[in-house]
This record gives sequence, C-alpha cells and structure tokens, in this order.
Amino acid sequence: MNEEEIKKRTQETAGKLFGRGIQMKPPYFLWKDFNKDLANDFSKFITGNLYSRTVLSLPERQMVACAMLAALRARDELRLHVNAALNVGCDRHKLAETFFQLAPYGGMPAVNEALEVYKAVLQERGEWPIR
Amino acid sequence: MNEEEIKKRTQETAGKLFGRGIQMKPPYFLWKDFNKDLANDFSKFITGNLYSRTVLSLPERQMVACAMLAALRARDELRLHVNAALNVGCDRHKLAETFFQLAPYGGMPAVNEALEVYKAVLQERGEWPIR
Amino acid sequence: MNEEEIKKRTQETAGKLFGRGIQMKPPYFLWKDFNKDLANDFSKFITGNLYSRTVLSLPERQMVACAMLAALRARDELRLHVNAALNVGCDRHKLAETFFQLAPYGGMPAVNEALEVYKAVLQERGEWPIR
Amino acid sequence: MNEEEIKKRTQETAGKLFGRGIQMKPPYFLWKDFNKDLANDFSKFITGNLYSRTVLSLPERQMVACAMLAALRARDELRLHVNAALNVGCDRHKLAETFFQLAPYGGMPAVNEALEVYKAVLQERGEWPIR
Amino acid sequence: MNEEEIKKRTQETAGKLFGRGIQMKPPYFLWKDFNKDLANDFSKFITGNLYSRTVLSLPERQMVACAMLAALRARDELRLHVNAALNVGCDRHKLAETFFQLAPYGGMPAVNEALEVYKAVLQERGEWPIR
Amino acid sequence: MNEEEIKKRTQETAGKLFGRGIQMKPPYFLWKDFNKDLANDFSKFITGNLYSRTVLSLPERQMVACAMLAALRARDELRLHVNAALNVGCDRHKLAETFFQLAPYGGMPAVNEALEVYKAVLQERGEWPIR
Repeated sequence: MNEEEIKKRTQETAGKLFGRGIQMKPPYFLWKDFNKDLANDFSKFITGNLYSRTVLSLPERQMVACAMLAALRARDELRLHVNAALNVGCDRHKLAETFFQLAPYGGMPAVNEALEVYKAVLQERGEWPIR
Repeated sequence: MNEEEIKKRTQETAGKLFGRGIQMKPPYFLWKDFNKDLANDFSKFITGNLYSRTVLSLPERQMVACAMLAALRARDELRLHVNAALNVGCDRHKLAETFFQLAPYGGMPAVNEALEVYKAVLQERGEWPIR
Repeated sequence: MNEEEIKKRTQETAGKLFGRGIQMKPPYFLWKDFNKDLANDFSKFITGNLYSRTVLSLPERQMVACAMLAALRARDELRLHVNAALNVGCDRHKLAETFFQLAPYGGMPAVNEALEVYKAVLQERGEWPIR
Repeated sequence: MNEEEIKKRTQETAGKLFGRGIQMKPPYFLWKDFNKDLANDFSKFITGNLYSRTVLSLPERQMVACAMLAALRARDELRLHVNAALNVGCDRHKLAETFFQLAPYGGMPAVNEALEVYKAVLQERGEWPIR
Repeated sequence: MNEEEIKKRTQETAGKLFGRGIQMKPPYFLWKDFNKDLANDFSKFITGNLYSRTVLSLPERQMVACAMLAALRARDELRLHVNAALNVGCDRHKLAETFFQLAPYGGMPAVNEALEVYKAVLQERGEWPIR
Repeated sequence: MNEEEIKKRTQETAGKLFGRGIQMKPPYFLWKDFNKDLANDFSKFITGNLYSRTVLSLPERQMVACAMLAALRARDELRLHVNAALNVGCDRHKLAETFFQLAPYGGMPAVNEALEVYKAVLQERGEWPIR
C-alpha cells in the first residue's frame, strides 16, 4: 500500500469511527500541537494501518478496544471509543454486558468508570436509556 | 433461578470453557484450599451467573475476556481463558488480531505477553502454527 | 442462607457502611441504570455475601479495603469506602497512617491521592482536622 | 531520634519482620549490591522510620501492607510480607479473608496471585493447611 | 551528613525544583495536614536525600522522573514535575519527545495524558507553543 | 522518507540497540510467528520511525525508555532495553540511579524488579559489579 492509499484509508476509517455522535477532539490534534510529523505518523499507523485491517470487522474491533480501554481505566480514550463503537453499529446491550464482564478481572472500580463513561456518551447522543 | 439450577449451570458452563485443551487447574481449586464456602460462592457467581448470561454468546464473551486479561497483563488467567476461547470456537486469527490491537492502548509489553501465552497454548493443544 | 436472608443482610450491611456521612450515590444505582438483575446480583454477592462474613470485623474489613483501593488509585471507590470506614468506627489516625504506609509500595502519587480523598471526606463530615 | 537509635530500631524491626520463616533475601541486599549508601538510606527510612511507628501495631501494619501488595500484584514483595505478617502474629484466617476481599476491587487475577503466594509461604513454613 | 545539612539541602533543592512557574501546592503541605513528623521525614528523604544526589544532574533526574510519572499515569504529580523539569532547564523538545516515546510501552492513553498535562503547564508558564 | 530508507534505518537502529550483549530474541520474531505483515509494520514504526528520530540521542532515548519500562514493571521488555542502553553507551551508574529514583513514584516492588533485571543483564554481559 503506498502513501496516498494509507492517507486515504486513514481519513475514511477516522470518518467512520469519529465522524458522528459526541462532541470531542480526537488526540490527533493534541499530537499535532507538539509535532506535525509524529502526529501524522501515529495517525497513519494506528488508524490507517491497524484499524483498517479486516481480520476483525470494525464493530468487532471496537468491542475489544472498549474492553481493553475499560480494563486499563483509560477514561478519556474510552469515551472516544465508546462513541466510535456506537457509530460503527455495536450492539448497545452487548457493550454494557462487556463492561459488567470486566468485574471478575479488573474489579468494580474499573466497571464503574466504564459504565459512567458509557452512560454519559449515550446521554450526549440522546440514546439513553437503552432498556 | 434456584440453587439447584445455578449449580447445574455452573457445571455446564465450566465444562464448555475448561473441559478440554491444555493441562490446567482452574483457580476454583485454589479458592477451595482456603475456604470451601467462598470457593463455591465465587464459582457460582462468576461461572454460574455472569458467564451463563446470553446477552453475549460464549465466543463473544471470551473475546472480550481475553482482550481485558491481556490489557491487565494477567498471564495465568489469560492462559486459562485463551484455552477456553478456543474451546468455545473463537476464531484463531481474530484472537491474534485482538492482541495486536492492544498495541496502541496497552503498549507492546502487554501485546508481547499475550502473544507468548497464546502461542504456548496453541502449541500445547497441537494447533500451532495458525497460519 | 436463603434468598430472603441474603436480601436482608445486604440491606443491613449497606446501611451500616453507607447510611451516614458524605453525600454520595453508591454504584448500585449506576448498575441498576443498565441492568436491574445484574445490579441485584452484584449487590447481593459483594455486600450481602462477602461483606457480611465475620472472619474480619467490619472495621477490619474496611481498613484492608481502603488500603487496597488506595493502592489501586481507585479514587471514587475510595471516597465511598473511606466514608464507610469512618461509619463503622475505624480509627482516624490509623487510617491516615495506612495511607502513609502505602509510600514504599505504591509510591507517592497513590499516597497523595488517598490523603486528598480522605481529607475531603473528613471535611465534608465536619471532622477535620483530625489532630 | 539520632542516627544510632534509628540504626538500632531498623535492626530490631527487621528482626521481628524477617528473622524467621521462609528462606529469602530481603531487597536490602540487592540495593547494597548497587549502592551501599542508598541501601542504608532506604532501609533506615522504610524499616527504621516508617515501620517503627506505633500508630499501627506491627500486625495491623502487616495486614494493610499485605492488602496493598496483593492489590499491586507485587508477587515477590508479597511473599516477603506474608511471611513477616505470620512472624508478627497476624491471624491466618484473617489474612486469607483479606485476599478474598480483594476480589471486588482488584479482580480475581490479583486474588489468585495472592492466594498462591500465601499458600506457598504457609507450605514452606510447615503451617499448611490452615483449616 | 547531619540533620542541619539535610534540612538545608532539602530547602535548596525544593527551591530549584518548585520555586517558579505554575501555581501549585507541593504534596508536602498535604502530608503536613495529617502528620508534621511524617511530612518532614518524607520531604527530607525524597528531596533532601534522593534528589540531592549528583550521580544524575537535576535535569537528567527530571527527565527520567517525568518519563516514569507519565508511564504511571500520575497526572497531578506529573504536572508538578514537568514544571520542575522546565525550572531546572530541561529541553522542551526533548521532553515532548519523551512523552511520544512512551507510545510503544505505555500506550496512547498514557501519551495523551502526559501531553495534555505538559501543554497546560507550558500555557500557564506563558511558554506555549514550543515549536 | 521512502520504504527503502525506512527499512534500512530500521535495520541500522536495531543493530545498534540489539546487536550485542545478552542472548535474546527480540519481540519482532514473536510478532512474525503470528503475522509477517504486522510484524514488519510494527518494527518499521517503532524502530525505523520513532527510534530513529534524533531529538533525543539514542543514549538519552534509552534512559527514558528504561525509566518507563521499570515504572510499568515490564520485566522482559526492560531486560531487552537495559541491554540496549548499555550497547549505545548509557552510563552504568546513571542507569542504577534511575531505578532508585523510581522509589518515590512507582514504589519499591518496581525498583526491586528493575534492579534484579539490571543486575542479571550486567552479569550476563560480564560487567558485574559496576562499583
């Protein structure tokens, strides 16, 4: 894949993930504040390269990404990716169940953080409650 | 659901998850070494109750469980659940892709630990290489 | 222990732990927002079952719970359990000493977070300063 | 407290904590391999200063130390301090209960690691099983 | 080194690190709120003793301290030490590069937190942008 | 920079970092076991791209990398990068001091793991003791 194709795929994938839903500023802009070259390198590597692979479908990829970010208690990043998960069509009940499933592995503080973030994103999207 | 049903479901679910594949001793036996009541309580709560819910199918549940355990760098528990994931039919390429997907969130040390564990489990099951 | 007894014990123990002190909304309500069955299962398992055991007295249990939550840097949960510790009669100087004791194991960022949370809870309860 | 007193207290406290039980080499010797001055500074600060305070009794201090180390999944250090806890008279059932109490906060991988370490220490001391 | 010298060195080193730049209240004051003796012990040990060693120059020490605090996602402490790093003359581009270098080890959530903290400190110091 | 240049730089930088010292198999080979394309992508991104930047010199980069890996308690990766640090000329006393400097931030369990790894690498290289 050449440079032009990676750039195009980066933009397409970023659009699908982050183009709708909550108000947010993806980390790309923070990276660019410090270093434009690195910002582009990271963006192309993560979004253009890794996220554009098709072994996992985008909804499958977002399910495991949200699971990981919840486990890592990475609140801000989880907010971004919970919104992206909803954008690419993840099932809303399955996402909640995933966060409950974290209980025996990451403990309740991690579960609670994830559910709080998830609820706030759903509210901002006007999709709350899910039941 | 009454006591008898939970007990039955605990055993059925445990059988599906841990009944085949690698040599291992599920943590239940360690819990029982210390306290039989608590061991049964934990087992019924986690396996009988949480794991038996059907919002996520067992393969879907194992995908997110493996993602979380890899993120938490919980090596021993990951070994157990990677084997369980294969037992309930998770796609072997998707599981590998999930661990690579951890790179931007949990970092390469976590990715490397997960791939090592996964490779060792596949070897012990006689299913290596996957390509 | 039958269902009715567990339910009763859950409410009694929750009352002792969370019935007084700071303004807060225990995580139970967040869980219930997503799933009433799971909320009850978690609550009965943690509060009704684990927390009602008498091998550790409630003050002893809260001392180790606060120690763990401080180590895990679980700020919100620590706030809840520091208040509960004071409700069940933990010694205020021993609690402070416990957080200083975290220094050689969890590092000063964890110590500082715990002391900040503890000070804010004491202030909200009108019990500050403790010296 | 002058230098001579701190040195004496460091040795006395270290003796009570680490003088009996399992075969082990406290980290002091590793520190000394790299830098004798720093090794003495750390030892005097942690053991002579912090551990010699009496706000918490030694058994109370070891209970919260073990709780923290289990939460941090600091296996080697936990081994050292579980042995020290037993040396200063901590109740063996309360220690096991403490590790089960970690379940809702740190998750089962942390619980399992702690129980494994604890069981191995008890076995090496010839004090297994505890029931 | 006697008591008087350590006290003097503690004050000198603290002045170099924290005497300028952002508005902040070093953790020393929080420690003192709880226990004056321990506050002085911690301060003398960390700032007077460890930070005053010359094997690493102060700028070198702050580079590795910032690297560690970013990896540990210790936001408040990082804010303090990023400011200190700038006070003792660390190169602003090297500090940004250090946080990008965290990507393959600690993951992007840690990188993003560090860059956010760093940008806010630079803004408060009137030194933004650095390019 | 075109593909050919990145590939060349990846090999040159990898040679400087990992070409001498301890027996080891860099993670690249593990990645390749699962997926050759991803292995090359990761390697080019991390080693060819990030590690080849000159804002930090290679010894400066290895100092902060070792600081981070020690903080993250990433034992295997630290082993690799401590060896690389020595290969590119990091000062051996400064590296030890960096690990002691982790004490107030990451706690002694992290310090002890780092010193153990460092000592083992120095022994395998025939460069022990360093004093």
